[in-house]
Amino acid sequence: MFIPTISDMFEAHQRIEPHIHRTPVLTSAYINSLVGAQLYFKCENFQKAGAFKARGASNAVFGLSDEQARKGVATHSSGNHGTCLSYAAGRRGIPCTVVMPRTAPQAKKDAVRGYGGTVVECEPSTTSREAVFAEVVAQSGAEFVHPYNDARVIAGQATCSRELLEQVDDLDAIIAPIGGGGMVSGTCLTVSNLAPRVKVYAAEPEQADDAYRSLKAGHIIADDAPDTVADGLKVPLKDLTWHFVKSNVADILTASEVEIVDAMKLIWKRMKIVMEPSSAVPLATILKNRDLFAGQRIGVVITGGNVDLDKLPWQ
Amino acid sequence: MFIPTISDMFEAHQRIEPHIHRTPVLTSAYINSLVGAQLYFKCENFQKAGAFKARGASNAVFGLSDEQARKGVATHSSGNHGTCLSYAAGRRGIPCTVVMPRTAPQAKKDAVRGYGGTVVECEPSTTSREAVFAEVVAQSGAEFVHPYNDARVIAGQATCSRELLEQVDDLDAIIAPIGGGGMVSGTCLTVSNLAPRVKVYAAEPEQADDAYRSLKAGHIIADDAPDTVADGLKVPLKDLTWHFVKSNVADILTASEVEIVDAMKLIWKRMKIVMEPSSAVPLATILKNRDLFAGQRIGVVITGGNVDLDKLPWQ
Repeated sequence: MFIPTISDMFEAHQRIEPHIHRTPVLTSAYINSLVGAQLYFKCENFQKAGAFKARGASNAVFGLSDEQARKGVATHSSGNHGTCLSYAAGRRGIPCTVVMPRTAPQAKKDAVRGYGGTVVECEPSTTSREAVFAEVVAQSGAEFVHPYNDARVIAGQATCSRELLEQVDDLDAIIAPIGGGGMVSGTCLTVSNLAPRVKVYAAEPEQADDAYRSLKAGHIIADDAPDTVADGLKVPLKDLTWHFVKSNVADILTASEVEIVDAMKLIWKRMKIVMEPSSAVPLATILKNRDLFAGQRIGVVITGGNVDLDKLPWQ
Repeated sequence: MFIPTISDMFEAHQRIEPHIHRTPVLTSAYINSLVGAQLYFKCENFQKAGAFKARGASNAVFGLSDEQARKGVATHSSGNHGTCLSYAAGRRGIPCTVVMPRTAPQAKKDAVRGYGGTVVECEPSTTSREAVFAEVVAQSGAEFVHPYNDARVIAGQATCSRELLEQVDDLDAIIAPIGGGGMVSGTCLTVSNLAPRVKVYAAEPEQADDAYRSLKAGHIIADDAPDTVADGLKVPLKDLTWHFVKSNVADILTASEVEIVDAMKLIWKRMKIVMEPSSAVPLATILKNRDLFAGQRIGVVITGGNVDLDKLPWQ
């Protein structure tokens, strides 16, 4: 297991800066008054390809040797990582293959193709996905870039909180949603080195609370097919992200489906930004844990904005 | 008729700066590639109270003498002006009354009340509105702040394009939606004085194209109850806004309902911002007039973000 260091984060930031946005930090006087704290929303929904995953994917792609790069990159993901890997590969002009269940939303397939990547479909089962993916890698020699359990990816995601620490003084805490733990691990990496006084919280749907239960149990618990509106957060921790979570996360807070959708709608209505259900989980947990955050200055990571506008969760 | 000057704009800006946001300018590489021009979106959807009208309303409210201020302000508006006047009055701590048809959306009434204003309902007819409004003013002595045909309001709206000219170098044109013409008049005021080389275009729904027909005819044409998804743009020009439109607007371009909704959805999807149908009319007209704008640098005013999330126009 190769654990990324703070030097890897600095190198990643220098490497990816031409390919990503330094996203803005937004605030809402109304939401602050509701919460009784100062919230600083780091808006990765405005990131290239619509999600923070452009950071980790760009770091992996632009860190490849020319020889490896020629063979391309590959991943399995029906979410933002596939789109963002295709974006990064397109910027470097190399092939990218994304293995996706044939049942994945058409919009997700179109997004990968829109940036020049190739979609290879598998059956909607782990067995099929692994078999198809192995074949893709065997034929192409492509470099596998895991959505989160990859030191290059974590070092890339870690650049987000570096920017946030530069953009907002004297934060007391940073809170980010947790699925596989890539963003949270990156946040832990940066904060534990550059601002160890700042606490890192993770926010998770009650209906996919495997990270919460893992932290309480002291070992990784992986659920079988959890279901939640926060569809970016269904995947389990892996060894590398578990390393950061167990060492550096102050606590994991959970929210119900209704609380997540209400928080999402509140952000859309008051902050006028389009963001994913997953990105609303932190605010949902802050709203139900007001005492924990009262009077503090909290960084909140809005992880992405790729949502199906024809199927909004409050309708 | 008191026509505001560029000095009025500078005074307005100084007066309102503590009460408004200097809103960001966003760009989209994808939309630029679609259009074949560089578009700079001035995001007044992020403005206080969710619309550029916070500028004009704040200028009117904070320009009042203490004596007049004590009696408060009043207007008739079922749109953003009512909300924004209530916002500005709340900041000064003075009364604000908004006359609104009893049939107006509950959300609009709630928004006025949310900032501390009073809603007085009338029947949904011009006769009733004028009678009820006259009574409100007679009883309270409140200062009438017209939604757009008011020099103080136009000078306030004019501060938006001053910021835009500071934020983006070498613009070739600025385009804004036109209803009553407050934003367009303010833009003309600023641009004709500070950057006369920059052309000002107005964008209007085909189904409420009274300004377009006025410009062609050379006199004000007011339609009776036009219907369009761009519900902020149904009102007609008045003498003061007509003065600016006829003198300074390069052209008025129109778009169909479908084109407006498509442009709105494109902005939501690609730029991840929540904005009103009215704010999508400029992009809709640019998309159908690509030759006119090819290769140019265009400022596009996103006028507001107060939309009913439960009734989106593509559903």
